[in-house]
Amino acid sequence: MSNLQTRIREQLQKEREAATLLLQEWVRHPSVQCEELSIQESIAKRLAAMGLEVDVWEMGGEELLKHPYFVSPRSVFQNSPNVVGVWRGVGGGRSIILNGHVDVVPAGDEAQWSHSPFSGEIVDGKLYGRGATDMKGGNLSSLLAIQVLQALNVRLKGDVIFQSVVEEESGGAGTLATILRGYKADAALIPEPTNLKIFPKQQGSMWFRLTVKGRSAHGGTRYEGVSAIEKSMLVVQAIGRLEKERNQRMTDPLYEKLPIPIPINIGVIEGGKWPSSVADLVKLEGRMGVAPGEQMTDAKAEMAAALSRLSEEDPWFAEHPVELEWFGAQWVPGSVALDHPLMEILQQQFVATTGEKAVVEASPWGTDGGLLTLLADTPAIVVGPGVTSVAHYPDEYIELDDVFRCAEIFALTLIEWCGIAEE
Amino acid sequence: MSNLQTRIREQLQKEREAATLLLQEWVRHPSVQCEELSIQESIAKRLAAMGLEVDVWEMGGEELLKHPYFVSPRSVFQNSPNVVGVWRGVGGGRSIILNGHVDVVPAGDEAQWSHSPFSGEIVDGKLYGRGATDMKGGNLSSLLAIQVLQALNVRLKGDVIFQSVVEEESGGAGTLATILRGYKADAALIPEPTNLKIFPKQQGSMWFRLTVKGRSAHGGTRYEGVSAIEKSMLVVQAIGRLEKERNQRMTDPLYEKLPIPIPINIGVIEGGKWPSSVADLVKLEGRMGVAPGEQMTDAKAEMAAALSRLSEEDPWFAEHPVELEWFGAQWVPGSVALDHPLMEILQQQFVATTGEKAVVEASPWGTDGGLLTLLADTPAIVVGPGVTSVAHYPDEYIELDDVFRCAEIFALTLIEWCGIAEE
Repeated sequence: MSNLQTRIREQLQKEREAATLLLQEWVRHPSVQCEELSIQESIAKRLAAMGLEVDVWEMGGEELLKHPYFVSPRSVFQNSPNVVGVWRGVGGGRSIILNGHVDVVPAGDEAQWSHSPFSGEIVDGKLYGRGATDMKGGNLSSLLAIQVLQALNVRLKGDVIFQSVVEEESGGAGTLATILRGYKADAALIPEPTNLKIFPKQQGSMWFRLTVKGRSAHGGTRYEGVSAIEKSMLVVQAIGRLEKERNQRMTDPLYEKLPIPIPINIGVIEGGKWPSSVADLVKLEGRMGVAPGEQMTDAKAEMAAALSRLSEEDPWFAEHPVELEWFGAQWVPGSVALDHPLMEILQQQFVATTGEKAVVEASPWGTDGGLLTLLADTPAIVVGPGVTSVAHYPDEYIELDDVFRCAEIFALTLIEWCGIAEE
Repeated sequence: MSNLQTRIREQLQKEREAATLLLQEWVRHPSVQCEELSIQESIAKRLAAMGLEVDVWEMGGEELLKHPYFVSPRSVFQNSPNVVGVWRGVGGGRSIILNGHVDVVPAGDEAQWSHSPFSGEIVDGKLYGRGATDMKGGNLSSLLAIQVLQALNVRLKGDVIFQSVVEEESGGAGTLATILRGYKADAALIPEPTNLKIFPKQQGSMWFRLTVKGRSAHGGTRYEGVSAIEKSMLVVQAIGRLEKERNQRMTDPLYEKLPIPIPINIGVIEGGKWPSSVADLVKLEGRMGVAPGEQMTDAKAEMAAALSRLSEEDPWFAEHPVELEWFGAQWVPGSVALDHPLMEILQQQFVATTGEKAVVEASPWGTDGGLLTLLADTPAIVVGPGVTSVAHYPDEYIELDDVFRCAEIFALTLIEWCGIAEE
């Protein structure tokens, strides 16, 4: 272990108590969509105190709202500012974005939580609360990386751009706004919960809604109608075949452990209004996975084609085609080359920190990294503390040890990537 | 045409205008569930004015509420009285019940009506409005049959029991209450809309709810979960097989024209809450047809057995059996012998009135006749004006000519069935 690494670890240890309290504070801000103001103000204040150049703004405007990659259920972001803090390097080094979102999904049924969802309660080294894993824990790792380097009087050559964004959970409008504002870098790290696995590739995804038509009739003479429920079963089967076709093309070894690298999930079904009537309409809503490197428009066209082939199977669909709508959220897929220099650095620092070999995989879900890679020419790699199996669920928690382990990896990575000017 | 029939027809012609206004008045009472008071008061008053022995009561009590055939979403029937009027015969004849319900299903989306649902508007001989066909038009036929006989000073030997009941649309609690109150007769006519076809057999039906279980997961790793939507497709298929088996046993020639004599309709499907989550629960609601003469308990057991066989097909169901619940409405099936004397009389009077041969079929839906036949030892035959294809739909209407045609058939039938004492 290098002398500097030892000092980083010691410094992290010194800051551990205060940092843990800070994560508690963050989790206690119930920063669901539209409620991000207080945490963003707190973060902006902290970044300013650390001497970063702080940029706080409410996004909006034509350029954002009409951007082809803009998705959000809202168009006004009052009280939901983005925050960016730039720790300016002395020059001559590579810049890096540390991107993380502060918006969290709703707590859901609080009765299913053993720990109040915005308590930040700590039990056995785990900090509980909505957003603890997704992804305030990771954000703390990023912040701590800067903080310990500052505490050790390390000056970097390249800029470190700390981004605290909104609207990730709804598809990335916050990060898109940072890009439109001009923020880019030579690479980016996104500490979403990967359990410290390194994800150079991310599955994209987008939401669809299918409307399947039938014809109503009394249930006692149901043969006089056409059941949209029965027709929707054919649609579900067609989606299953499309998923199979698409996944047979996935030969990337990073995906070989995954039974279905880019799933198409039908998550919602709803149709019919009366037990003794034939259902004349069924709505299906789902999520289509998009392969790293695949164009979202191509995936959309493939879905449309699969649905239109239904008429070959059943003439009903020729007269009553399934309606396809892309709605709600989308996450652009992302892909960074396995031999990208930041990939090498990350794996080295992982070994240096943990003594173990890093696991490199592809993520089964999208992050804001897709947008950074695609639109800002900023290759984004996802690696962070926490496990996704608790994200979005009751009793979400994060192992505090992992937060500090990640902070150490990040601090070492910043040094290697941005270059060290002086201590 | 007999002299009496000619006079009945002339008398009906004389009363046509007033009777049409009465039907308009009835339709203008929006007698959906819980709102039947005003029409029942109006009917009770009219029956009293006609000299019938009138019985108006709010049903309730243990005997009703705990009766195995009681179904209703409510247990208190305040402001929803039953009305029965007995036109006492001189004795020595067969008695008859004329049973009809005044409760109507909701109007639904009023925007889909060209005629306001409770207007009773008349266009081209059709009277429009919710309940016009189901079944205030038929009730008027029954009332007119009594009224014209009275106007012609006909005295019958047997009693005519005019029943104006509530709660048919929710499964027959109103008629059940008349039975528990002691009303029975040698036979019954129920003028539900059969388009004047004669239905000696009625399909019963009952509502079921199936809960299909899955296991939630993120859509991006959907293979970690078990989709209740996919499992519900197997359930829908199993129900389809059960329907096929049950209908292969239906050899009754009355059903030979029906593609599916006793359908099982799945009318509602609802499951999952989020497009990118694996659905952990799907609810299916439907209506199971019950054959005339079949025990409802046998049909229920057959459904349960079909669902439990699912575990042979997919072990998931062994650990997570589909939950089966019988809820909401049920209509007891009914069956009267084709050679029942009232069947013969009805067919003769149909020919006498229309000059055509009556069509005898089995009904694809249940009525309160099932309860009368099963519990009150009162064989019930369903025949009435109006077509079911407009019942429960926007722009429900009834052809007024058919109402008066049915009244003539009924008046003649009362004479033949109850016997004539004097004019």
